[in-house]
Amino acid sequence: MFIKVFKLIHRDAKTQARRGVIQTMHGQVQSPFFMPVATTATVKTMSCVDLYDMQSQIVLSNTYHLYLRPGLEIMEHVGGLHQFMNWDRPILTDSGGYQAFSLTKFRKITDEGIKFRSHVDGSMHFFTPEKVMDIQRVLGSDMVMPLDECSPYPCDHRQAIRGLKRTTEWAKRTKEHFHKTGMHKRGQRLFAIVQGSVYEDLRKRSAEELLALEVDAYAIGGVSVGETVKEMFEALNWVVPLLPKDKPRYFMGIGLPDQMVKAVGLGIDMFDCSIPTRYGRHGSAFTNRGKLNIRNSEFTKDLKPLDEDCDCPVCRNYSRCYIRHLLNMNEITGVRLMSYHNLYFYIKLMEKMRAAIEADDYESFQNKFFADYNSELVNF
Amino acid sequence: MFIKVFKLIHRDAKTQARRGVIQTMHGQVQSPFFMPVATTATVKTMSCVDLYDMQSQIVLSNTYHLYLRPGLEIMEHVGGLHQFMNWDRPILTDSGGYQAFSLTKFRKITDEGIKFRSHVDGSMHFFTPEKVMDIQRVLGSDMVMPLDECSPYPCDHRQAIRGLKRTTEWAKRTKEHFHKTGMHKRGQRLFAIVQGSVYEDLRKRSAEELLALEVDAYAIGGVSVGETVKEMFEALNWVVPLLPKDKPRYFMGIGLPDQMVKAVGLGIDMFDCSIPTRYGRHGSAFTNRGKLNIRNSEFTKDLKPLDEDCDCPVCRNYSRCYIRHLLNMNEITGVRLMSYHNLYFYIKLMEKMRAAIEADDYESFQNKFFADYNSELVNF
Repeated sequence: MFIKVFKLIHRDAKTQARRGVIQTMHGQVQSPFFMPVATTATVKTMSCVDLYDMQSQIVLSNTYHLYLRPGLEIMEHVGGLHQFMNWDRPILTDSGGYQAFSLTKFRKITDEGIKFRSHVDGSMHFFTPEKVMDIQRVLGSDMVMPLDECSPYPCDHRQAIRGLKRTTEWAKRTKEHFHKTGMHKRGQRLFAIVQGSVYEDLRKRSAEELLALEVDAYAIGGVSVGETVKEMFEALNWVVPLLPKDKPRYFMGIGLPDQMVKAVGLGIDMFDCSIPTRYGRHGSAFTNRGKLNIRNSEFTKDLKPLDEDCDCPVCRNYSRCYIRHLLNMNEITGVRLMSYHNLYFYIKLMEKMRAAIEADDYESFQNKFFADYNSELVNF
Repeated sequence: MFIKVFKLIHRDAKTQARRGVIQTMHGQVQSPFFMPVATTATVKTMSCVDLYDMQSQIVLSNTYHLYLRPGLEIMEHVGGLHQFMNWDRPILTDSGGYQAFSLTKFRKITDEGIKFRSHVDGSMHFFTPEKVMDIQRVLGSDMVMPLDECSPYPCDHRQAIRGLKRTTEWAKRTKEHFHKTGMHKRGQRLFAIVQGSVYEDLRKRSAEELLALEVDAYAIGGVSVGETVKEMFEALNWVVPLLPKDKPRYFMGIGLPDQMVKAVGLGIDMFDCSIPTRYGRHGSAFTNRGKLNIRNSEFTKDLKPLDEDCDCPVCRNYSRCYIRHLLNMNEITGVRLMSYHNLYFYIKLMEKMRAAIEADDYESFQNKFFADYNSELVNF
């Protein structure tokens, strides 16, 4: 029960990049890593067998969606989310607070929690810090996120203070309830989420207040909400130096491939993002040379694979012109092939980052990646 | 070039069911068999790897759709449909006549051919018997269907005569063009399609006229167009006794599992149908005990697989309640899992029929299937 959550294996010689292992009740996760997003208990268009095949170590799922559908009664009946989706590797679940706030037509946030009307059937619900722990206990997720108040963008200093204060108060209630209900003993791991919007003083204050709580891992939240990429990395740079070296660091909802490469170099261990599947559905394929819009007419007769450097089953079997045709015909097969390749690209990219860190070579890996990818982040 | 197209391996002792092998330029197909429908160069939600995994021997694709999108220029560029979709087993392509007639807002049928306006971009096109051969030569399909006039339902005797006359005339022109352009020498195989609607005299007359042409195989068309199941099997019973024993017999667009079981017992070798994928998308799972509507609330907490007797990857890994949840959430994954199981069920059912024929046991196999499936066809 007191197994160390995070083991630091190696620090890169020249950057802040770190190689680690997170121990969970469903096995180890090698960091840094990317979590495919399985909002509704499936990564869009994929089955768990596909995710095993592409060596996804972990998935992220969503408390708000699963709470509404299929609902906790079914989750209790089947024995939790792992059983339900037949996934035997780790799962991180977010708190659902963000969705309760962003997807609903009616919601009211108070110090007690978030009252909201379901976007599915209009029924009223109330998420408190304690309630979202109870839900995640039933889901049985390996990594558990607390309810927080995610500051919108833009957000004035006063509103950002309110958000971070509430986030700290809720984190305290979360930790108390988490321990009182034995979630720690079951092997679940609790995160805290640093807020503070685009303000240096508030980001640092939020981090310091949460550090005092000594949870299992730390996330930087309230990023990728509309702010500039420069502001996003500023938030990271203010917070990371304050975070403990012996605990995982999660940059929430990030991001594009070059953003992940950059963030790992600055000491981040964990990512999640719907971009690989969402962009895939809309025709964008990721490659080391940048993003290709496969719907473009230049690919009409292109017999090359999506990515000439990729060894995924999609790139081994299908041409750009075939996949372009499927997308033009609105065929699900096309959407699936695109999603598969993009997820594979993300997962392999993290593998390459891990290898580069182990070889004390992260700086040159990053420079080469930015150059090949034609990334603007090279100048940040 | 004069390899025998069809080899009859075994006739069932008590029924008309037959076990055979069709030789094509992309290998053998064991009959009787089912062809998954890959209208637009993909079986909906599936990749070719999936179809190999479920041991699909052959797929059917569509001349009308591929002619319009991606178009023949791309097909020539990539070297045909097999290359385009990366499928190295046999392909049957229909003539596109049915789609040119049923999908378009404007079409005009004359003795020369079918003039129609594309449902995609409104452009005008003209399908003649010769033209659809030229298209299928470019596609490189193993089994080639001629342009025919499919009588609608209902259809009076006079209109049905016109349809069968034109079908015969077009079949003659088809065969001439097929040979003149060397399609036979390339190993492509030509079918003729028996029409005649619900009229015994016309069905027989159509069959006799086409028999004189001595093509490679015979199809019964103009079925599953709205007529009753009784009328559908009447057409079969009038025509099959006239067909040569040494050539494949294809019951076009059929059907439901018990209809295929029945038709095999009456001497049919080949089937195609969009039902497994279409019904799957709408929540119907096929089992030996009949069809289940997985969206029904009775499956909300059901931990059993779709089909307790099935060993497909879907039934080995996922529960009814999980798949029901995915369908309710409109998740593509759910549609794909349903489609996979249903296609697998169809393919395995044909395997079982082949084994029963080889064991001279088709009658009892059929009786047991009808009883388990609770089929109305038991009384036909």
